[in-house]
Amino acid sequence: MLEHILSTRQFLDRNALAGIFKRAEKLESADKRGRIPKLLKDKILSCVFYEPSTRTRFSFESALLKLGGQVISTESAGHFSSAIKGETLEDSIRIISGYSDIIVLRHYEAGAAERAAKVSSVPVINAGDGSGEHPTQALLDLYTIKKEIGRVDNFKIAMAGDLLCGRTVHSLIYLLSASRNVEIRLVSPRELRLPEKYKSFLKSREMKFFESDRLEEVLPKIDVLYMTRIQKERFSSARLYERVKNSFVLDGKMLAKLNKHAVIMHPLPRVNEISRVVDSDKRAAYFRQAKNGLYIRMALLSFLADGLLSRRKI
Amino acid sequence: MLEHILSTRQFLDRNALAGIFKRAEKLESADKRGRIPKLLKDKILSCVFYEPSTRTRFSFESALLKLGGQVISTESAGHFSSAIKGETLEDSIRIISGYSDIIVLRHYEAGAAERAAKVSSVPVINAGDGSGEHPTQALLDLYTIKKEIGRVDNFKIAMAGDLLCGRTVHSLIYLLSASRNVEIRLVSPRELRLPEKYKSFLKSREMKFFESDRLEEVLPKIDVLYMTRIQKERFSSARLYERVKNSFVLDGKMLAKLNKHAVIMHPLPRVNEISRVVDSDKRAAYFRQAKNGLYIRMALLSFLADGLLSRRKI
Amino acid sequence: MLEHILSTRQFLDRNALAGIFKRAEKLESADKRGRIPKLLKDKILSCVFYEPSTRTRFSFESALLKLGGQVISTESAGHFSSAIKGETLEDSIRIISGYSDIIVLRHYEAGAAERAAKVSSVPVINAGDGSGEHPTQALLDLYTIKKEIGRVDNFKIAMAGDLLCGRTVHSLIYLLSASRNVEIRLVSPRELRLPEKYKSFLKSREMKFFESDRLEEVLPKIDVLYMTRIQKERFSSARLYERVKNSFVLDGKMLAKLNKHAVIMHPLPRVNEISRVVDSDKRAAYFRQAKNGLYIRMALLSFLADGLLSRRKI
Repeated sequence: MLEHILSTRQFLDRNALAGIFKRAEKLESADKRGRIPKLLKDKILSCVFYEPSTRTRFSFESALLKLGGQVISTESAGHFSSAIKGETLEDSIRIISGYSDIIVLRHYEAGAAERAAKVSSVPVINAGDGSGEHPTQALLDLYTIKKEIGRVDNFKIAMAGDLLCGRTVHSLIYLLSASRNVEIRLVSPRELRLPEKYKSFLKSREMKFFESDRLEEVLPKIDVLYMTRIQKERFSSARLYERVKNSFVLDGKMLAKLNKHAVIMHPLPRVNEISRVVDSDKRAAYFRQAKNGLYIRMALLSFLADGLLSRRKI
Repeated sequence: MLEHILSTRQFLDRNALAGIFKRAEKLESADKRGRIPKLLKDKILSCVFYEPSTRTRFSFESALLKLGGQVISTESAGHFSSAIKGETLEDSIRIISGYSDIIVLRHYEAGAAERAAKVSSVPVINAGDGSGEHPTQALLDLYTIKKEIGRVDNFKIAMAGDLLCGRTVHSLIYLLSASRNVEIRLVSPRELRLPEKYKSFLKSREMKFFESDRLEEVLPKIDVLYMTRIQKERFSSARLYERVKNSFVLDGKMLAKLNKHAVIMHPLPRVNEISRVVDSDKRAAYFRQAKNGLYIRMALLSFLADGLLSRRKI
Repeated sequence: MLEHILSTRQFLDRNALAGIFKRAEKLESADKRGRIPKLLKDKILSCVFYEPSTRTRFSFESALLKLGGQVISTESAGHFSSAIKGETLEDSIRIISGYSDIIVLRHYEAGAAERAAKVSSVPVINAGDGSGEHPTQALLDLYTIKKEIGRVDNFKIAMAGDLLCGRTVHSLIYLLSASRNVEIRLVSPRELRLPEKYKSFLKSREMKFFESDRLEEVLPKIDVLYMTRIQKERFSSARLYERVKNSFVLDGKMLAKLNKHAVIMHPLPRVNEISRVVDSDKRAAYFRQAKNGLYIRMALLSFLADGLLSRRKI
């Protein structure tokens, strides 16, 4: 029974994962027939976003509304709430948990979701806590892999771009440890390599990985290309940035080198690391990936509702 | 079957217009009896406002809720969304259209709604795109004329104020080409005259119009007075502004000159171009006009729902 | 029949108060059983907040949703609405009251709620108007006293902190005049004493009160401790602030002096005037108090709905 959704590491059980993916599929098919069960009828979801993220917020709100619940929401709790007057996150969550049945929290500090869960009287979902985790993103990423290539095991994935700071890359690396026989290519400029901590994790799990700074070399050999944004401001010199930036843009020329059966993913928003011409290629899965987020979140919310229901019975 | 609502020019068919107005009337009467049919049950509307407009947003949200649907909403997408990170409007709309059944878009750039419609998988309603169009406003304006003077043909209307930049004036001019025997007085300071483009349109449709810079002269002769705001900052010199400003304020003295059967409209917000004393005059229709927006938007949403339903059948 | 909720002084009738508290209790017990009657089905609440207050807004929105209604909401009407273009509060309210069944208004100016009620076609609830009133807060405060100590009469209360500017203290003082045999200790630094106006009110109602600047002296003798925030910036000199600040912090040492049967309240947000160690003391009632706000607001909304219903019958 799920109590809170705080970290990707809660989801390393293969059976549990399969259960979530199965429910997501069922809910997607119910949605297409216009017959979603109202599993969260009369439930109220609080969306408490200390930093803005329209995409993530809309996705959670839509998920909850489709399941028959209602939403109370703040776009920018950091500017608008009593946070300005000096109230702690803990006090805010204690109070808000009295007004709602589930809390979705986006915060700019790593560990915020865990702190919130400690004082909340209702389930807390981590929708991103600073450089920490974003577990529902990692789940929708793996779900997308499953839907696009037909399996969660036995594949080669390249993660490309800013591996140093990319929260979604870090979360996905944890989650992939639940898959079998996955080979990971870590493709980044030298300045933006994956932190040692995650490489140690990969080693401890005996997962195969290789580092590279040449995207074009890995393109023919992979099943999944997971692109992320490279931010100019990460570089100490503009010259350095100019040197590397084109090696990490998926344009028409690069696309030609990509394995014909591969799938292109991106957590979005993208800026120019994927050219517009790629959008119409059938391997481009990033908009389908965003849509999958809706069903993964519906599945997770419905599991939390199971918990709510059983708590009520007690 | 409506797919998107982008421009006033989609509504120049007299039968279609009559159908919309009839449905608006029915919905108003159903509202008064507390018996609005839940035509948009389980439908989710996304309000995506890149610039704020509480009035327009509330009016759409209320319309949708009254029809049984649900709303996800952002007050200021420009500041809060991934737009800051450099995401294009097209990418945002692609994703949001996966989370909702209808999108209402307010944007600061002309043409934004059309760009959105091109990539959206669900109907897009233009709720104002910069200096472009605001079709639901023009429809509620003509609907108000119909309700207030009893007809959509055979009337004299003065449009007064800032005719150069007033988006609602431009949209209404297009729509009036669907009416018969309408005479238009364009009343503005010389600096704020109607652009040549719209005068050419009026000529091409053989519609009667006259330009004037003296409001008091037209007041006794008209059936409809459509006031708009004159902004001080439009004038190159403060002296110029001081010279003209009083000729375009409807105060008690000016009101005395207005035709007894005329009706006073304003797209709102007003600042001081209509004095408070006018509010209690029975010819003052601007608050009724704002309320009519609710029913016009309900009617339009319900027509879109027809489309959604028929698409589902396919 | 309630028409608007503007001031605490509307609630000085003991029978009316008892009726509100009784309904709040019923709704709380219905909520626990998951069986809240949908008394506001199909009703739309507008939350119009000219200054942000996530706590108060969430509490009203949750109350309305639990009663089966729907919400349209603006977090910061002052920045986002046509207020920037110069529209008056009155015009905004006239229009919004056409889109909704009840308006909850938070504004930065005293008297704003009364001005809004004059032009609104639907009930207005004052959710705080500048240095004016915050009637639903006072009601939930007295309701909390009733629930915590079992009575609304015959008790000793200390109000501590900033009595000069604390809007909630002022509102509660008015409301306590409906109670019998209440003794009030006004505990504040000399610089932040209760204004003469409220002391005159207390005298005119022959209510017992004493002023003090030593919190520890009153702690053993009271039934209710109502703490409020002391803001550093209120003091003319930092030295003055340093001298007094510790006398108004409820820490473990001070807590030891508090009457064993007393209850600790705070309108929240708190900063450091109540130490975290106090939270686990069973006398700490401030989070229960925040939750009580939900049921008091549900009760008030349901009484307004009675009025709406009877108006419809006419």
